[in-house]
Amino acid sequence: MSSERLIYLPLGGAGEIGMNAYLYGYGKPDAERFILVDLGVTFPDMDGTPGVDLILPDMTWLKERADRLDAIFITHAHEDHVGAVAHFYRDLGAPVYARAFTANIARRKLTEHGHPETAVRTVSAWPEQINAGPFKVGFLPISHSIPESAGLVIDSPQGRVIHSGDFKLDPTPIVGEAFDPELWAEVSKGGVRALICDSTNVFSPDPGRSELSVGPAIEELVSEARGMVVATTFASNVARVKTLAEAGHRAGRSIVLLGRAMRRMVEAAQETGVLSGFPTVISPEAAQDVPRENLMLLVTGSQGERRAASAQLARGKYNGLEMKEGDMFLFSSKTIPGNERGVIRIINAFSEKGVDVVDDSAGRYHVSGHANRPDIERLHDIVRPQMVIPMHGEHRHLREHAKLAIARGYQSSVAVNGMMMDLSGNAPTVAEFIETGRTYLDGSVKIGAMDGVVRDRIRMALNGHVTVTVILDEDDDLLGDPWCESMGLPETGNSNASLVEVLEEDLGQFIGRATAKTMKDDDKLEEALRRLVRQSAQTEIGKKPEVTVVISRMR
Amino acid sequence: MSSERLIYLPLGGAGEIGMNAYLYGYGKPDAERFILVDLGVTFPDMDGTPGVDLILPDMTWLKERADRLDAIFITHAHEDHVGAVAHFYRDLGAPVYARAFTANIARRKLTEHGHPETAVRTVSAWPEQINAGPFKVGFLPISHSIPESAGLVIDSPQGRVIHSGDFKLDPTPIVGEAFDPELWAEVSKGGVRALICDSTNVFSPDPGRSELSVGPAIEELVSEARGMVVATTFASNVARVKTLAEAGHRAGRSIVLLGRAMRRMVEAAQETGVLSGFPTVISPEAAQDVPRENLMLLVTGSQGERRAASAQLARGKYNGLEMKEGDMFLFSSKTIPGNERGVIRIINAFSEKGVDVVDDSAGRYHVSGHANRPDIERLHDIVRPQMVIPMHGEHRHLREHAKLAIARGYQSSVAVNGMMMDLSGNAPTVAEFIETGRTYLDGSVKIGAMDGVVRDRIRMALNGHVTVTVILDEDDDLLGDPWCESMGLPETGNSNASLVEVLEEDLGQFIGRATAKTMKDDDKLEEALRRLVRQSAQTEIGKKPEVTVVISRMR
Repeated sequence: MSSERLIYLPLGGAGEIGMNAYLYGYGKPDAERFILVDLGVTFPDMDGTPGVDLILPDMTWLKERADRLDAIFITHAHEDHVGAVAHFYRDLGAPVYARAFTANIARRKLTEHGHPETAVRTVSAWPEQINAGPFKVGFLPISHSIPESAGLVIDSPQGRVIHSGDFKLDPTPIVGEAFDPELWAEVSKGGVRALICDSTNVFSPDPGRSELSVGPAIEELVSEARGMVVATTFASNVARVKTLAEAGHRAGRSIVLLGRAMRRMVEAAQETGVLSGFPTVISPEAAQDVPRENLMLLVTGSQGERRAASAQLARGKYNGLEMKEGDMFLFSSKTIPGNERGVIRIINAFSEKGVDVVDDSAGRYHVSGHANRPDIERLHDIVRPQMVIPMHGEHRHLREHAKLAIARGYQSSVAVNGMMMDLSGNAPTVAEFIETGRTYLDGSVKIGAMDGVVRDRIRMALNGHVTVTVILDEDDDLLGDPWCESMGLPETGNSNASLVEVLEEDLGQFIGRATAKTMKDDDKLEEALRRLVRQSAQTEIGKKPEVTVVISRMR
Repeated sequence: MSSERLIYLPLGGAGEIGMNAYLYGYGKPDAERFILVDLGVTFPDMDGTPGVDLILPDMTWLKERADRLDAIFITHAHEDHVGAVAHFYRDLGAPVYARAFTANIARRKLTEHGHPETAVRTVSAWPEQINAGPFKVGFLPISHSIPESAGLVIDSPQGRVIHSGDFKLDPTPIVGEAFDPELWAEVSKGGVRALICDSTNVFSPDPGRSELSVGPAIEELVSEARGMVVATTFASNVARVKTLAEAGHRAGRSIVLLGRAMRRMVEAAQETGVLSGFPTVISPEAAQDVPRENLMLLVTGSQGERRAASAQLARGKYNGLEMKEGDMFLFSSKTIPGNERGVIRIINAFSEKGVDVVDDSAGRYHVSGHANRPDIERLHDIVRPQMVIPMHGEHRHLREHAKLAIARGYQSSVAVNGMMMDLSGNAPTVAEFIETGRTYLDGSVKIGAMDGVVRDRIRMALNGHVTVTVILDEDDDLLGDPWCESMGLPETGNSNASLVEVLEEDLGQFIGRATAKTMKDDDKLEEALRRLVRQSAQTEIGKKPEVTVVISRMR
């Protein structure tokens, strides 16, 4: 019996929605050859990651084993699947395989970061297969909310694994291939060891709706609008962008694309041939000469992002264009949990301008890109794998998905980031726990989520900051007075005196009473002054600030 | 003709949901006598108000005119209506009127802050009327999600105004009075000049459901549960707490109340006689001897608040009780926009423990406390006022509500915080704009939202902080080296050297080259050093930190 094993190790995307990175390996333990499926990012927020620019999966473990990585496969061009490719290009060094549209996006990312675009290789859809170490990998088209999404057929010496990618079962996706149940059944008929499967919408009880179904409602809405129409959706949802543009075109409106991602996605889709027949687009400059009732803007910022076109328009003029009373703004999108505040801020800003805002609260102008519960079950039953491993979900989604699979007779188990699963047996088993986490791109530097940097920033945000400076002479006596400066704290506290002056006085008194031993020892003195400032501030303002103590000794 | 006027001035709650504070006035311009309706708070968040403890309406304008304030009326005991009463007790000095349950809660708040509880006076329901300057005010019972909610009948020399308070039209509210359309029609039949009306659910198209309707679904769910059952809802929703407790009781479970607000609300409701027949409650200690399948906990924290009982149970043991695989957690609540992340965090933590979480996504276990669009229209048509002024809503709600009223033939206008409306004529007109905003309770200090304190904290959270210390001698020459300390920044940057050392070296070089003029001038030198540190950090780490510069001169 061989001691080789087939392993699956999520490094991102399992136990969260975002920063997908799934590793597959085959070989003897600790000598497996690897392929990586997807390498995405997730987005920071003020709550937990203030000041962070982007959140990347933690590739420390894989970097140390980069010589065993044969290839990276990208299932589709969403940021949470492709967004980290350029950031780890140097560390991982493996070739990147993707279908044409995804490859186009990946190449733009690499060249922006000064890397050669030749690192990305374009692959045709199934039945083409790429040899990558012990694996042969093919891209099986599946519908999603972006062109050319693919599941992966991963053949190993221990049989076939199917990685669903993000998917929905759409017979009429407008752009890109329809879901082809016969093809998926054909590929699965020889037996599938494991289906690694999207869990996002496992809590949605009804079958998903086709992209085609939103067209008529959007067309009706746009045809009835009187002023300027502005619509937002994820730019990568090229089918939706096309539906919106066509609705505008049929209503006699000129189409304007606003926001970098909007132009880039339409461009990439046209370059790679997945999008054709898109209405003529005019520039924002040209649009200024068109009557507003003959304009339709398609803009970025469906999630209320502060710098995107929608937020800019909510604040005022953007690219020379401005929304006015009687105009309409359409969210052809769903608000991702956590983004509500930003979206609501924009809606209220439009309301103040007299702009009518239409959103998807009645379910007319948007459909999800993910398979709902019955669709997930349908895919299980088409593929009929030996085991189902839920991915692309928070813990609650993975758990529910595993319960669903088990109820239908499949082996299943929840595997979260860092859990290396051995798929060689009849059921998935945990082979190892890998220490993994998140990497923050912070300005131009990568920092670990556990480095304490962001924790200190959060503390300053909650507690404010005080700088204490004391200068001591050779005899450890104070030269001048202690000096305080505060940032992010009220100027006066409960005693109605200046906070900084109260702190300075308390510091002066403390130093006057301090023992020679304390005054001699920088660490001890620093700690004592910090504690004093925190206590004194607590009395004055009911808050214990973060404190930086600088002790200078004149010798 | 008299020059007296009847005015309405929202100081909170109009253009936002939260911190309600509505002022009514009657008299000659700038000599009106006032009554204040509600005095609530709103809650801070990390996004915009990190470190803030509570957000209060800005009472600056009213404080300067406190001698003209005759009374404060509180419609109901929700925090966004009563929460600021104690915080402005000294500044405003007017008596507080409320019905018994609300008065009970208000008194608890005052005594907690060391104020006399006699400031609060209990009023019976209509037809009792309180004389307050030129006004006569009565409490007209209306259903809501808390006991004894009331609309206010405000009689002035220019006729009757009705302030709806928060309301729904519930014929079977479980606790408290049912909505009585005959009473409202009777009170309105002599003519109502203005209806100031709740707008919260104006975007909900279907008629609201009664509190009674959730009982059967909850009872079914609880009766089928096997392990321990834990349910959360707003503690102030005493009817829901009762429904939950009764479902537990009928399923043979002992009831435990966890969380301070939960115990306080049930206690207040029992003390004031609005709640009777509540099942016997056992203590958390006693619960430890009861088999878990015979327990039902009713806990605080339906919005995912970090310190509430739900979050504590998600993290581990709380009051000796712990959730385990096979237990059930029920959110008998709706997540308020902005709180999604906290709620989802808890759900995933329970998922990791194997706890089954049930929420209201299917609409079975919760009903709203606010009137939906058809209910709002129904109240308009019962009261038949000359004008409708929407309140209790963000701008989008107020605007939609005004459109609705106008479409049905009422005069209406959007009035946001700070807009003083003259209600004396046939239609509402803007009399004046009052400068108003928000007051932050920060630790033990009240600060203005525009003071810049929180802005500086947000900047530190986004950019980190650097302290620069330089000591100069009498000739403006450097004594020792410049000294930097950083907080919330990576230790090393792009050059792989210590960030602080790079900054110190750049500072040293700069000072070596600086002109005598710069070195002499503290302001100039400080600004130059700050700019240098920010530029140098930008190169090293791609971030411009906040900088505190301390220049000490030895003389």
